[in-house]
Amino acid sequence: MSSNRLIYLPLGGAGEIGMNCYVYGYGPADKERYIIVDLGVAFPDMDSTPGVDLIFADIAWIQARKDRLDGIFITHAHEDHIGAIGHLWSRLGAPIYARAFTAHLARLKFEEHGHDEMAINTVPPYPEMTQVGPFNVGFVPISHSIPESSGLVIDTDAGRLVHTGDFKIDETPGVGEAFDRKLWAKVAKPGVRALICDSTNVFSPEPGRSEASVGPEIEKLVASSKGMVVATTFASNIARVKTLAQAGQRAGRSIVLLGRSMRRMVTAGVEVGILKDFPKTISPEDAKALPRGNVMLLATGSQGERRAASAQLSRGKYLGMSLKEGDLFLFSSKTIPGNEKSVARIVNSYSEMGVDVVDDSSGHYHVSGHANRPDLAEMHKIIQPQFVIPMHGEHRHLREHAKLGESGGFKSVIAPNGTMIELSGNAPEVAEFVETGRTYLDGRVQIGAMDGVVRERIKMALNGHVVVTMIIEDGKPLGDAWCEIIGLPEVGRSRAPLVEVLEEDLTQFLMRANKKTLASDDKLNEGIRRIVRNSSKEEIGKKPEVTLVVSRLAG
Amino acid sequence: MSSNRLIYLPLGGAGEIGMNCYVYGYGPADKERYIIVDLGVAFPDMDSTPGVDLIFADIAWIQARKDRLDGIFITHAHEDHIGAIGHLWSRLGAPIYARAFTAHLARLKFEEHGHDEMAINTVPPYPEMTQVGPFNVGFVPISHSIPESSGLVIDTDAGRLVHTGDFKIDETPGVGEAFDRKLWAKVAKPGVRALICDSTNVFSPEPGRSEASVGPEIEKLVASSKGMVVATTFASNIARVKTLAQAGQRAGRSIVLLGRSMRRMVTAGVEVGILKDFPKTISPEDAKALPRGNVMLLATGSQGERRAASAQLSRGKYLGMSLKEGDLFLFSSKTIPGNEKSVARIVNSYSEMGVDVVDDSSGHYHVSGHANRPDLAEMHKIIQPQFVIPMHGEHRHLREHAKLGESGGFKSVIAPNGTMIELSGNAPEVAEFVETGRTYLDGRVQIGAMDGVVRERIKMALNGHVVVTMIIEDGKPLGDAWCEIIGLPEVGRSRAPLVEVLEEDLTQFLMRANKKTLASDDKLNEGIRRIVRNSSKEEIGKKPEVTLVVSRLAG
Repeated sequence: MSSNRLIYLPLGGAGEIGMNCYVYGYGPADKERYIIVDLGVAFPDMDSTPGVDLIFADIAWIQARKDRLDGIFITHAHEDHIGAIGHLWSRLGAPIYARAFTAHLARLKFEEHGHDEMAINTVPPYPEMTQVGPFNVGFVPISHSIPESSGLVIDTDAGRLVHTGDFKIDETPGVGEAFDRKLWAKVAKPGVRALICDSTNVFSPEPGRSEASVGPEIEKLVASSKGMVVATTFASNIARVKTLAQAGQRAGRSIVLLGRSMRRMVTAGVEVGILKDFPKTISPEDAKALPRGNVMLLATGSQGERRAASAQLSRGKYLGMSLKEGDLFLFSSKTIPGNEKSVARIVNSYSEMGVDVVDDSSGHYHVSGHANRPDLAEMHKIIQPQFVIPMHGEHRHLREHAKLGESGGFKSVIAPNGTMIELSGNAPEVAEFVETGRTYLDGRVQIGAMDGVVRERIKMALNGHVVVTMIIEDGKPLGDAWCEIIGLPEVGRSRAPLVEVLEEDLTQFLMRANKKTLASDDKLNEGIRRIVRNSSKEEIGKKPEVTLVVSRLAG
Repeated sequence: MSSNRLIYLPLGGAGEIGMNCYVYGYGPADKERYIIVDLGVAFPDMDSTPGVDLIFADIAWIQARKDRLDGIFITHAHEDHIGAIGHLWSRLGAPIYARAFTAHLARLKFEEHGHDEMAINTVPPYPEMTQVGPFNVGFVPISHSIPESSGLVIDTDAGRLVHTGDFKIDETPGVGEAFDRKLWAKVAKPGVRALICDSTNVFSPEPGRSEASVGPEIEKLVASSKGMVVATTFASNIARVKTLAQAGQRAGRSIVLLGRSMRRMVTAGVEVGILKDFPKTISPEDAKALPRGNVMLLATGSQGERRAASAQLSRGKYLGMSLKEGDLFLFSSKTIPGNEKSVARIVNSYSEMGVDVVDDSSGHYHVSGHANRPDLAEMHKIIQPQFVIPMHGEHRHLREHAKLGESGGFKSVIAPNGTMIELSGNAPEVAEFVETGRTYLDGRVQIGAMDGVVRERIKMALNGHVVVTMIIEDGKPLGDAWCEIIGLPEVGRSRAPLVEVLEEDLTQFLMRANKKTLASDDKLNEGIRRIVRNSSKEEIGKKPEVTLVVSRLAG
C-alpha cells in the first residue's frame, strides 16, 4: 500500500492560457491508474501557427498508457477545457464524465465527430461522487462564466485533492450556482493534500466583482439609446446573455440572437433546464419590420472573429440587418490579448458608419470569470491545503500564484507542463519530467508542432518562394532552368525582371557545372539554392525559399 | 487673391497610429504650393504584412506635384514621424526642416542612404519662422516623449494654422522644454483658423501625468532591489533614460547602456547639448567585475522586439551579461497594442529564470507622451481655433476627438487619409477625395500594398503550396506530372502519401485531357489547379496554393 504514489502531471494549461489538460495518477510507480481532467484547445495565430485550425496538448504520454486510463473529467464547457474531446477521444477511448450542461455540449461534439455518445456520462454534483479505478471524484459547483462549472474533489487512498477548474468567487452569478463558502469549507474539512488552482487573474489586484453588478449599468445604457442596440459577449456566458436580453426587454426592445453559437448556447441552456425566463426572441426578418429603437441584437464575435456576426455587421449587411448613425454597439466583454487588432478593426468600421461603440474601459459592462488575487488568497484559506499547485496560466502567472501561496503560508510548487509532481510524500516532489508539446489540427490532419510543416509555411510568408524547374537529358541540361516567383517583387535593383536575372545566373551556373554536380540532385539543389538566394538578396534584398524540381530524361 | 485656397490633406496618420504624413497647400486650386509635415513609418505584422520591413504612406499624389513642393517639416524624431525620410526623399527632393536634435537624427538617416545632407536644415524654435513658398512656419516647443518635439505654426495669407504634432501637456518633462501655456496663448492670440491635433489618447479619461512623477517611484524600486536591475524603455525617450540612470546612480549602481539605439540616442542627446549631467556609463565588460547589486542595465526592446537587448537577455547571455534569480527587470514603458505576445514571451522567460518582472500595471513607472482627453480639451481652449481637425489616430480616435471638439464648442471635422479639406472658407469643406494607400518596403524594394505580392505570401502561409511540374512533348504528356508539397502534411485521410494521391489523380486527369486542353497553358493550369485543390481538400482538409510549371518540348 505504501508503495502507491499519487501524481499530478499537466500536459497543457500550465504554461499558457488555454489548452487545459491535466493528468492525475495513483498506484505503484509507473503502473498508476490515471484520470484526465479537461481536454481543451488553444487557438492559433498568424505569428506562430498560420493556417492551423486548432491546437491541442500533445497527449502521446497518456495515449501510450491508455489501458490504465479510467476516465476523462470535464470541469466546464469552455473550449479551452472541452474543445479537444471530439478530436482526441478516439486516441484515448476512456469514458467522459461531466455535469448535464457540459455533457450536453460534449454530446453535440461527439455527434459531429461520429463518436459513440454512450461514452459521455452525465453526473450529478457533489456530494455525489463517481468512482473510477482508485479515484473517487466529485463535481463541486463553483462560479465562473459558463453554467455548471465545477471544481473537482479527487479522493484516493493518498488523500484528497481539490482541482478548482476555472472559477471566481461570485455569490450572485445570475444564471447557475453561486459560490458557496460553506460547501467548500465542508469539502476542505477532512483535510486537503493539494489545491490545484486557476492562476489566470493572479495579476489583478482588486477583488473580483459579481455578475450581478453589470445588469443595472447595462440597463441604463440600453435604455438611454435611441437607435438600434447591438451587444456582444461570449455566447457561452449564458448569465451575461440573459442579463443583456433582459436589459433590452425592459427598454421595450425585441431581442434577436445573431450567430450560430448564440442560438446554440441559449437552446442548450433551455434544454438542460438551467436557463429560465429568457426573454422571447424574434427573427432578423421580423426585427426589420420594427422601429430601430425597439430592437436589440445579441451578436457573436466579441473577439473580432472575422466570420462572426459582429464582424459581418461591421462590414455591411448580415441577415438583412445593418447598422447606421445613431445606433449603439456594446462590447460586454474584454479583449483577449492578441485580439486587439481584430477588435479595433471592427470598432473602426463602426466608427466610419457613425455607430457609437461602448466597451468595458469604464469597468461597468463586464466582469471577469476568473478569481483575482485576493480571491485566490481566500480560496487558499478556505481549502487550507498542505500544498498549492498553481495551474492554468503562463509561467509568469504560475510563479506569481506560487508566491501568493507562500505569502499566505502555503507550501507552493511551480509545475509547468510536463512536470510530474508526486503528491503522496510529506512534501511535493518532482518525480519526472515528461516530454510535452503541441498538436496542430491542420485542416483535418493532426500534425506535431515540431514536424516542420508550419515552419515551412512561415518561411514562405516571410521570404517568398522561388520555384526552379529544369530538365536533364542524358546527364546534360536540356535548355535553361526556369524560375517562377511567388510572393516576391517582380523587379529589383537592376530594373530587369527578377525572374530573368535569376534565370541568367542559373544558366551561367549550369554552364560551369561539372558532370558530378549535374548527376546529383543534392549537389544541384545546393548550388541552385545558393545562386537563387544570393542573386535575390542582391536584387531585392531578400533570400527566398527555393524549391527545385529536376526532371531527368533518358534520351 | 481670393481665388487662393488653403488645403489640408492627410496621406498617412489619419486612420492609423503611425505613418504620419500630412500635406498642406496654398494657392490657386490645383496649382497650390505644398509642404509636407512629417514623413513617418508604420511597422508590419505577421497578420497582414509578413516579410515586410517597413510601411510608408503612398506618396504618389504629392510626388506627382513635387515641382510645387516647397519643404518637408519634421515635428520630432520618432520613427512614425521621421522614419521614411531616408527611403522616400529621393522621390520628393524638397528641403527638410527640423530642430537640432531631430535634424541630427535625420542626418544619420541620410548618411545611411547616401543622400545629400545639405538638404537637411536645422531651424531655431519659434518665434523664429522659416519662409518657404507662401508658407511661414514656426517650430513651437511642445512637451512629448522625445526631445525638441514641436507643434508647428503655419501662416499663409489665409490665416494661421496650428499643427500640434504629437504632444502632451507636461510642465516638468525632465529633459527638454516644458509645456508653456503662455507661449501657446501668444501663438493663438492673432486667431487660429484650424487646430490640427494629436488624437491618440482621446480615450484616456484622466488628465495626463508629468514625466517628473515617475522618478521618485523608480528610485524607490531600484533602491529596494538587491540583485542586478535591468530597465527598458524607448531609447528615444531620453528624459526617461536619464531618470532611470539617475535612479541607478543614486542607488550606488553603475550604469550600462545595452543596445545600439540606447547608445545612439544618449550620444545624440549629448552631442546636440540637450542631455546634461547624464550619469557616467560603463561597458558590459567592466560591469562583470562588479557585484550584481551595483549594476543597472538600460536595455532596448520594451516592445519585445526579438533582436533587441531585452529579448536577447531573456534567452540567455547578451554581451556576456545574464540574469538570474533575485534580479529585477523593469518595463518603464507601455505595451503597444499588437505587441502583447512578444512582451509576454520575454516576461515568461524571465519568470523561468526566477527574475522578478515589474511592469506599469501599477501606474507608477511610466507616463504616456500623448495628451489625454482633458488635456486635448485644454489645448482646444488655449488655441481657440475656428475648427478642430483631429489627426494621428485610427478612425475611432478621430471621431471621438471630433466629438470632444464639438462638445467644447469648436466646429470639428473628421478627415481620414485622402480627405482634402479646404480651410480657407467660412467652414471647412471637403474639396476632394484623393486615392491613398500604403507602400511596403520589402527587402530593398518598394511595393504597393495592393500589388498582390504580400497577398501571395499570406495565402502560402495559410494554405501551403503544391508545385506541379510536367513535360509536354509534341502535344502529349511525357511521363507523369510531379508534385512537390511545401508546408503541407505528408499524409492525409487515405494514409497514402499526399504527393502520391495527387500524382495519381493528375495522371487520371492527363489521360482524359483532350488535345485542346494539353495545348493551352491556361486550360491545363485551370484543370490541374482544380484537381490538386479538390483532392487535397478531400485528403487533408485544405485547398493549397498551386503553381504549375509546364515544359514544352519539340521532339
